[in-house]
Amino acid sequence: MPTRRIYLEDIPLEEARGRWWAALEELGAADPLPGVQVSVADALGRVTAEPIWALRSSPHYHASAMDGYAVRAAETLGATETSPLRLELGSQALPVDTGDPLPPGKDAVIKIEDTQLTDHGSGITIEILSSVAPWQHIRPMGEDMVASELVLPANHRLRPQDLGAIIGSGHTTVSVRRKPSVAILPTGTELVEPGSDPQPGEIVEYNAIMLAAKVEEWGGVATCLRSVVDDSELIKQAVAAALDTHDLVVVNAGSSAGSEDYTASVFRELGQVLVHGIAIRPGHPVILGVAGDRPVMGVPGYPVSALMTFDLLAGPLVARWLGQPAPPRPASLPATLTRKVFSAAGEDEYLRVALGQVGERVVATPLKRGAAVIMSLVRADGILHIPRFSQGHEAGETVNVDLLRPAESIRNSIVTIGSHDLTLDLLADRLAQRHPGLRLSSSHVGSLGGLLALQRREAHLAGSHLLDEKSGDYNVDAIRRLLPEQRVVLLGFVTRRQGLIVPPGNPKSIRSLEDLAKPGVVFINRQRGSGTRVLLDYELKQRGIDPLHIQGYERQEFTHLAVAAAVQSGAADCGLGILAAARALELDFVPLLEERYDLVIPAEHYESDLLQPLLAMIRDPQFAAAVEALGGYRAEQMGLVLEEL
Amino acid sequence: MPTRRIYLEDIPLEEARGRWWAALEELGAADPLPGVQVSVADALGRVTAEPIWALRSSPHYHASAMDGYAVRAAETLGATETSPLRLELGSQALPVDTGDPLPPGKDAVIKIEDTQLTDHGSGITIEILSSVAPWQHIRPMGEDMVASELVLPANHRLRPQDLGAIIGSGHTTVSVRRKPSVAILPTGTELVEPGSDPQPGEIVEYNAIMLAAKVEEWGGVATCLRSVVDDSELIKQAVAAALDTHDLVVVNAGSSAGSEDYTASVFRELGQVLVHGIAIRPGHPVILGVAGDRPVMGVPGYPVSALMTFDLLAGPLVARWLGQPAPPRPASLPATLTRKVFSAAGEDEYLRVALGQVGERVVATPLKRGAAVIMSLVRADGILHIPRFSQGHEAGETVNVDLLRPAESIRNSIVTIGSHDLTLDLLADRLAQRHPGLRLSSSHVGSLGGLLALQRREAHLAGSHLLDEKSGDYNVDAIRRLLPEQRVVLLGFVTRRQGLIVPPGNPKSIRSLEDLAKPGVVFINRQRGSGTRVLLDYELKQRGIDPLHIQGYERQEFTHLAVAAAVQSGAADCGLGILAAARALELDFVPLLEERYDLVIPAEHYESDLLQPLLAMIRDPQFAAAVEALGGYRAEQMGLVLEEL
Repeated sequence: MPTRRIYLEDIPLEEARGRWWAALEELGAADPLPGVQVSVADALGRVTAEPIWALRSSPHYHASAMDGYAVRAAETLGATETSPLRLELGSQALPVDTGDPLPPGKDAVIKIEDTQLTDHGSGITIEILSSVAPWQHIRPMGEDMVASELVLPANHRLRPQDLGAIIGSGHTTVSVRRKPSVAILPTGTELVEPGSDPQPGEIVEYNAIMLAAKVEEWGGVATCLRSVVDDSELIKQAVAAALDTHDLVVVNAGSSAGSEDYTASVFRELGQVLVHGIAIRPGHPVILGVAGDRPVMGVPGYPVSALMTFDLLAGPLVARWLGQPAPPRPASLPATLTRKVFSAAGEDEYLRVALGQVGERVVATPLKRGAAVIMSLVRADGILHIPRFSQGHEAGETVNVDLLRPAESIRNSIVTIGSHDLTLDLLADRLAQRHPGLRLSSSHVGSLGGLLALQRREAHLAGSHLLDEKSGDYNVDAIRRLLPEQRVVLLGFVTRRQGLIVPPGNPKSIRSLEDLAKPGVVFINRQRGSGTRVLLDYELKQRGIDPLHIQGYERQEFTHLAVAAAVQSGAADCGLGILAAARALELDFVPLLEERYDLVIPAEHYESDLLQPLLAMIRDPQFAAAVEALGGYRAEQMGLVLEEL
Repeated sequence: MPTRRIYLEDIPLEEARGRWWAALEELGAADPLPGVQVSVADALGRVTAEPIWALRSSPHYHASAMDGYAVRAAETLGATETSPLRLELGSQALPVDTGDPLPPGKDAVIKIEDTQLTDHGSGITIEILSSVAPWQHIRPMGEDMVASELVLPANHRLRPQDLGAIIGSGHTTVSVRRKPSVAILPTGTELVEPGSDPQPGEIVEYNAIMLAAKVEEWGGVATCLRSVVDDSELIKQAVAAALDTHDLVVVNAGSSAGSEDYTASVFRELGQVLVHGIAIRPGHPVILGVAGDRPVMGVPGYPVSALMTFDLLAGPLVARWLGQPAPPRPASLPATLTRKVFSAAGEDEYLRVALGQVGERVVATPLKRGAAVIMSLVRADGILHIPRFSQGHEAGETVNVDLLRPAESIRNSIVTIGSHDLTLDLLADRLAQRHPGLRLSSSHVGSLGGLLALQRREAHLAGSHLLDEKSGDYNVDAIRRLLPEQRVVLLGFVTRRQGLIVPPGNPKSIRSLEDLAKPGVVFINRQRGSGTRVLLDYELKQRGIDPLHIQGYERQEFTHLAVAAAVQSGAADCGLGILAAARALELDFVPLLEERYDLVIPAEHYESDLLQPLLAMIRDPQFAAAVEALGGYRAEQMGLVLEEL
């Protein structure tokens, strides 16, 4: 039984962090951690805890920088090409190899290439054609570093060259800051181990592994504790035990104020809650506190919230313990927003967006905003920060997006928006395999949405299966109507079977579209504008079936697989979709129709260098064979130019 | 005895790499490495070897997104603030917590905050003030991902969020590319272990540790083999053994064509040399070859050459084996070059530069170019690539510098150019400790050089001890003369003892400047323009000593410590310098004079935010105390404004 919610605070991010850090400073718990001695060979990426002073000069002697002869510069005066000078080997000229110490009394080296060896009976001499300056081709003692010099200050993150310099200066170990240790405690009776087959209501726990990876990225070391059920006493015991051996304890979930949210009360029993609720999205129910002389943090249970709030609040603390400044702001670039975005004025919002360079512009397409949608962080190319007091942005507005990948990778992204087909996933993977660095980024908005995106010049290509009710042809009419001002190539891709996806055994014996109107049959539809929806409506009309008689006609899903999932879950008895989707979820399939799924590509992109590797792959017979092997597809038109419009 | 050098090739970098890779491709040795299964928890930073397809949808059921009540949307129609609607608890409204499965027959969730619980005798009801839409506050099955969907393609470097998505999609292990293994074989009879006390001619080996760290940075795993003396047969055995168990074998040094350079001949015996000599600086004597079906590489012995050529040639091969594109070009920025740079037209040169933002400009100061000066890579903030066919750049020219640190860190660098003093190193370290992210970057060019740098607006401040021969005062006259158009603050720093640095026991009994002219006494001088040189010349003139009578007067060193090093090495019997330098190298010191060492700071920088933390630290009595504790310094004027000019 849910209990009435206690409203959380809405503290701005900076203020929340400030409160937490001020309390930690007062406890002396925000200072850089002390040093531990490690072998220089193991110190890559570690942070110096103390300055490194050279114990030794390098080189520690005057060294020849060449293979040749050590001489006294004064004895070479007067040598010219027309009057060469001879120096007696063994006294005036002493052979040296690179790195050899300069023999006493000599002050320069002549390269062997600049000499001629001659035996004059009375002795061997070298002949030279020009005089040399003192210290020529000598690396003087201390050229690189001089004993007692500062090699590296404290708080420096060690790179390969630093390791060399430290050893070169006479050290074999280096004092580096101890890695901050962070305990991560997952809580929740609903949690099950990775790899379990979860029942409805159970959740596979993976936040701890993600947060541990974040700790590692920030330079700390994490302990993933065993998850604890929603029991205040057990949670308290686990937190108290972890506090003994960790610099920071993070409790995952239970950070809100619901009936089974114990984190705040546990923190209060063990210490003090400083902040409960931060005005950011995703991530509102965050708890910051102290227990004893240690910081504690409660992060929300939704994975996107957990990861982002940890990154904004705990990550910088790990950096501080390592004596590191907050990392610099990520690189950012201006991008054109493809959709209107409302944002609550009271919150800082961190919106995940997909980015791609289409023509001259970079376009930013907002991804799903749900805090549970971890794929939004997997797919995100950038983060659009919408600050408090902003209510969002209009479609077409230019916004500044913080990059999650290098700008170069954005330029190497092929953006496809439109109808989804499993073969696009196959194509995306093959592209990543054959052309590392090249990426197919796809958004699923249906066929019509794809053509509209091309109209707004927001994509390089669109997958489309829009049936023209008059001609019975696909896509041509829609392209003429929607893209009248663009030269467009219509490229053949697949012919696929559409049919009704039904539960295994087809328990309601659905055999035709007519059966959709039968009482007791619940249908799940595709969204308006999708090719499948157009096909359905066309076929219903042909057959004189009134959509109002179809239960569930108004419920929409956005992909074939989502339709299949709805059938699998029992939310619907059937939906129109493709064989591959039914097969993927082990459902049955009632084939009804075949339809063409083409790629619509504006000529400017079709001819661009960016798309050539993709086009070559589409035309590779191996790819067509792989597609046909999926079942439900024919690929004989794959890669053919069907029309130039 | 050196033998005549065989001239190496001068192959442009891209051509050399192309030749090597083409040979590897023919052998099938350039393909991405196969996958190994690792636990997802251990996969951070690894690269997927195969695509990851979702085994499971997430959520795998329709889940409540809120604490509240599950209802049928249709049964809420008509509810308004003025005519609330009641739903019977237990039938029409079922309590759910966030994450609970949607009970059968329900299709929406109402937040608990939007309800009132009422007991009506006949049963408990909830009262609602508005109707809800179907699917409100429900996370539909597959919202995050749908079974069979592509979660991640192959060749993707795994981030924390990816680990979560992989587990969420039903996997506990992931196929990642095997880490490329690289064997590093140091060769050279002159090599001694880190931590040894090397004799003249011996070199402490640290290249292997640096190269191993580079391998790790590129995503591979390195084996540092025991170093081998210059013996062709032993080197061959070591390379052959390493080839059995590694993807790449790198032989360090012996890569040129001197008498003891065996690498090329060993590679020829085991396989084939494709390239011997690349037209880049540093790094010319590089060998690229194949042995069996494996690549081999010989890198030069000088540490800067070793690291840079490995990074340009072997690093990208490691990336290729991981299915990764070459990394994007580093960020770069335009900077004003402070010195003229000649570069050989036939070579690509990679010049290490220090960067700092002084006023509106970023200035780039070339560091030492010697391939043995590892500190040039430690100190470098950027690399200026001077391409083949360019002969270099003029001073004052704007050049594009590839950054080795974030641009933000460049803006947080305080640039000091001028006379060196050990207390500046102390200051640099304290700054790094107290103000992570703030950096003191110092170049040592003598007092006069520092003032000239201020004149050219290339530094924020300069350390200076220029004695005015007429007034006996320090720096004021020089500032008036050299910086007539700038407002300048002359800040007190230290008064330090100058004297003669002599070997322990002062074997030549040098007691005064007059002794410098004694026969058999070899002096080491400081460079023209340095304060110490001015002081010396002033005192010599006062005493009527002719510099021509001082043996070694013409030999110049650029720092106090370099002078001390010259005395320690026996290259000179004495030099004028400060106590701290003598003490650092355990030499004796004959005090003769006291002099003022001030900081010269243009007012615009003195007043800038950037310098305030530094000024505060200079005025901290703890710092003055630490300086006096060094010995040879008085610090009572530290931080006082001596003059405003």
